[in-house]
Amino acid sequence: MTPKPATERIRKSPEQVRAAVHQAVIDLLCDPEGEDLNIPAIAQRAGVNHTSVYRRWGSLDALLADMVTTRLERDSPLNDTGSLRGDLLAWAEASVASIRTPEGRALVRAVILSMPNSAQAQDERAQHFLRRMHSIEQIRQRATARGENPPPVEQILDQLIAPFYLRALFGIAPPTTGYPELLVDRLLGSESGGSAVDGSTTNY
Amino acid sequence: MTPKPATERIRKSPEQVRAAVHQAVIDLLCDPEGEDLNIPAIAQRAGVNHTSVYRRWGSLDALLADMVTTRLERDSPLNDTGSLRGDLLAWAEASVASIRTPEGRALVRAVILSMPNSAQAQDERAQHFLRRMHSIEQIRQRATARGENPPPVEQILDQLIAPFYLRALFGIAPPTTGYPELLVDRLLGSESGGSAVDGSTTNY
Repeated sequence: MTPKPATERIRKSPEQVRAAVHQAVIDLLCDPEGEDLNIPAIAQRAGVNHTSVYRRWGSLDALLADMVTTRLERDSPLNDTGSLRGDLLAWAEASVASIRTPEGRALVRAVILSMPNSAQAQDERAQHFLRRMHSIEQIRQRATARGENPPPVEQILDQLIAPFYLRALFGIAPPTTGYPELLVDRLLGSESGGSAVDGSTTNY
Repeated sequence: MTPKPATERIRKSPEQVRAAVHQAVIDLLCDPEGEDLNIPAIAQRAGVNHTSVYRRWGSLDALLADMVTTRLERDSPLNDTGSLRGDLLAWAEASVASIRTPEGRALVRAVILSMPNSAQAQDERAQHFLRRMHSIEQIRQRATARGENPPPVEQILDQLIAPFYLRALFGIAPPTTGYPELLVDRLLGSESGGSAVDGSTTNY
């Protein structure tokens, strides 16, 4: 975990550089002393020259976005369980398992840190979000192909994804048992049991 | 918005320094060019000496936490509307109005940036979270005093607060009409309409 002295640095392949730099970001985000996340600190931790980090990624935002996208794609559970409920539950269980680890919480924090500030960057944010939604979209498409009626993406966002993000960010542990089931059943229950909810919402 | 040259700096009262520094954080978070948020940049933007920022707050985390707490307390809607639903709706409407502004989204981002990384800092995170929950707790207490049966705090967190945070962070605009009502009715509907939901969740 200690940075390698320059004399120990050996030539790395581009993919080794990428993996080392990504891991350095996660390590720094998990480090209790690591207050400032910047490219020189990341390069030092990864044992690479900071000029090659600038040349490859251009900015910290771009590096974080690349790291987050790579990790999320690697971690996305995409097995077909045979039902919408089963697929959503598998997604939720993987998410709960992830945010129970410091690395998983660091990844969520990196997602937020990689969001550009500017109004002009709205498109980049939307792109990032769509990548994150990729596995959810696959789950929805499989459900539709089975003849199931999946909830709209925005409802899945509000009722399933948002609670995981918020808990990861604030470090609020989810209930130890039944939490994935609770969220998925709320999501699907409020969908299938729509008439009861509609009856109480005539004030719209 | 341009930083004042040192020659223009005049002596500020402690409260003026605090307000100027807080505003500088918001301005930098809203600035499309403002990639690095650090104490020297904040001090320059606020027109104060960076040593007084270090002396007063000690660290960027502490400064962000102080700024966020101050703003959230100022912005919390605490009017008693006479019902749980009305109070939650007022809270949700204020939150939606806030995240429609760049400053509101910057504030949410600052909340996340001010979260300490370390496992040892769990208490600080919990404290921060409890402050954020203060207005929600007041709403719950008023409801209980009226004889209403408010949902548990964690359910309000998952179903009402989390969607606002996630949308603010990703810049996903909420639906233009009826969104506060939709979330509040989902929250209270799944509470009062519990039997329908329970019927579909026997697999727990």
